[in-house]
Amino acid sequence: MDDWGALYARRMQSMIPSDIREKMKLLDQAQIIHLGGGLPDPDIFPYDPLAEASARLWADRSRARTALQYAPSEGYFPLRTWIAGYMTRRGVACEADNILITNGSQQGLDFLGKLLLSPGDKAAVEVPSFIGALRAFDAYEPKYLGLPEDSADWDMHALAGAKFCYVGPDFRNPTGTCLSRKDRIGLLDLADDTGMAILEDGCYEQLRYEGEDIPSIAALAVQRYGGIERSPVLHTGTFSKTIAPSLRVGWIAGPRDVIRRLTLIKQASDLATSALNQMLLLDVVQDHLEASIDTARSVYRERCGSMLDAMERFMPRGVSWTRPQGGLYVWAELPDGMDGRALASRALLERSVSIISGAAFYPAGAINVAPKTNTFRLSFSMIPAPTAREGIERLGNLILEG
Amino acid sequence: MDDWGALYARRMQSMIPSDIREKMKLLDQAQIIHLGGGLPDPDIFPYDPLAEASARLWADRSRARTALQYAPSEGYFPLRTWIAGYMTRRGVACEADNILITNGSQQGLDFLGKLLLSPGDKAAVEVPSFIGALRAFDAYEPKYLGLPEDSADWDMHALAGAKFCYVGPDFRNPTGTCLSRKDRIGLLDLADDTGMAILEDGCYEQLRYEGEDIPSIAALAVQRYGGIERSPVLHTGTFSKTIAPSLRVGWIAGPRDVIRRLTLIKQASDLATSALNQMLLLDVVQDHLEASIDTARSVYRERCGSMLDAMERFMPRGVSWTRPQGGLYVWAELPDGMDGRALASRALLERSVSIISGAAFYPAGAINVAPKTNTFRLSFSMIPAPTAREGIERLGNLILEG
Repeated sequence: MDDWGALYARRMQSMIPSDIREKMKLLDQAQIIHLGGGLPDPDIFPYDPLAEASARLWADRSRARTALQYAPSEGYFPLRTWIAGYMTRRGVACEADNILITNGSQQGLDFLGKLLLSPGDKAAVEVPSFIGALRAFDAYEPKYLGLPEDSADWDMHALAGAKFCYVGPDFRNPTGTCLSRKDRIGLLDLADDTGMAILEDGCYEQLRYEGEDIPSIAALAVQRYGGIERSPVLHTGTFSKTIAPSLRVGWIAGPRDVIRRLTLIKQASDLATSALNQMLLLDVVQDHLEASIDTARSVYRERCGSMLDAMERFMPRGVSWTRPQGGLYVWAELPDGMDGRALASRALLERSVSIISGAAFYPAGAINVAPKTNTFRLSFSMIPAPTAREGIERLGNLILEG
Repeated sequence: MDDWGALYARRMQSMIPSDIREKMKLLDQAQIIHLGGGLPDPDIFPYDPLAEASARLWADRSRARTALQYAPSEGYFPLRTWIAGYMTRRGVACEADNILITNGSQQGLDFLGKLLLSPGDKAAVEVPSFIGALRAFDAYEPKYLGLPEDSADWDMHALAGAKFCYVGPDFRNPTGTCLSRKDRIGLLDLADDTGMAILEDGCYEQLRYEGEDIPSIAALAVQRYGGIERSPVLHTGTFSKTIAPSLRVGWIAGPRDVIRRLTLIKQASDLATSALNQMLLLDVVQDHLEASIDTARSVYRERCGSMLDAMERFMPRGVSWTRPQGGLYVWAELPDGMDGRALASRALLERSVSIISGAAFYPAGAINVAPKTNTFRLSFSMIPAPTAREGIERLGNLILEG
């Protein structure tokens, strides 16, 4: 089994009830088709550029000294400057002082929870939501409010008092769907009305395979308020999906006063992100980010298409699913009364296909939403066409047998 | 100015009142002798072994894939296994399951605060204490209890209800002093009596220049309780002082149930520490840790000696100071009535010598201790003998002039 398979199996463990985990030991692990996944494909990481950047760094003692000594908590200044330029090109005019480097965007979400939440505070999140964001916020014990999927149901009175609203407007995990431009503007209206911050998770924004880019909420806010300093949006970004996850480099972009407070949180949390990794990453993104993004798009575009084709062919009537224009995920809904968790267990034990039941993506104890239990998530990121066909066929047959 | 100088100047900023910061702009930065410091000396980092480990890694595509993909939240298994062996050799018999990899020991302290503290909980800390630990715990809003410096004053009734007691038994920052074996055992008695955990910060334990090693509290607990699983000690370790800080690799060692809960915190905080850095570090420590420790000891031993010699020669009567047998710090006490903060300001503005006033190392609002305001901290880690002599002479003269 490849590394990712072992890692994925470990990650799955925590989502699988212990009685099923026991039964899983009886399965031939190598036969399992992992449709639940979601890891980026290691075949597309830019190995040679990183190896070359690494050789250059070690050959220059002055840079190597910087790479190994404690870095500033706010991040390596040349990288912050580069990211500010990148954000500016994407419509979010800003400077290095508007950027805090974090260990991937996951740490950004944790810090935003730490900054904004005290126990019992209200936090609005789209439903279903990225599990990692929910786990990060959970630590600060908020009361969750669900942001309705249909913006016609958005209501400032229901959101009153929320400290923030967390959204992933582009191809979010788990649904693969986007917020329309109109809804992004609607969200800014809600922030205006309620005083809440908007936490925008930008981790998939470069992974569009079809259709036209929609400006980020951060960019729309900069337009509306004439600059980032008065924007209510705190935007998290990462190189995990475009370069490689294990450099662990992401960022938060926001008004400089907020970045200054987040920097104190960074300092108290782990002092600083590795200078070595920040310097390697800067070297690579300067010349190779566009090529890496192109590779990722072309590989994932094809896999997305193969999985959607297989869904068309093998999913029985009554099952519906999203048609993502980007990202790594497809979200499916079973006929009413069918349970995603039961399906996930049976798929694994009886058909050696792993999927993730959708209920896991809902916040625990949300005030105004219940989990949709007839749902599941698929990912195509690691799945070549024949495997997608085989896995989806097995799954479709199982659903058909009911 | 070297990188570390710029970094240090930035770090100092946050400890310096804003009116003095304004005046500092008028100083010639290059003339400042930084005796407050505390960064490891980048001259002793193992550049060649790291460059070679790096070249080996990039030359092996299978290892490079692992290095760039998401790592398990608990850490890279071969490194956890190696650290478990290292801890076992140091008297803390344990296995990989007893080790969580963190981004330096600072992240370990943050996670332990996150695990153990809710707002208003009591946390005992030695006074004075490492500022980074206090800032990490501050986020979880404890009420601080000071552990008296003299163990004759330790009192289980005063510590009743504390969730933990935080100590750095070896050459701690800021005093450079050690807890005796008797006091380490006394602390285990207190933990027995009160039910509190002991957070043992082991970051300087390898930096002994004179005298004999004392077993860690973690090792004494393993002896007392017949194994790590029933030990009340959670031990943080790091490679920041023995290899290099910016790999950002440290660990927590403790009972596996606690490590399992801390792993969930790690996952929600930043998913995992960089696999790349963990793999580079493992490659280097296997062959070079002992040599790196020897180099660090011999460089810092000499600098410690030079600074203590200069103190003997130039400090006026009435000033007392610690004589560390290891670590990076000397702690000094001024005659009653003199103020460390005022001295630090005048030393910087009038003599271009930076020191850190001792009051910063006391927890804010501790129930039972007030900061000793007539104190300051020096570090010898980056200071060659002639600079130490010059800096301490200037400082001594200033104190003498009063």
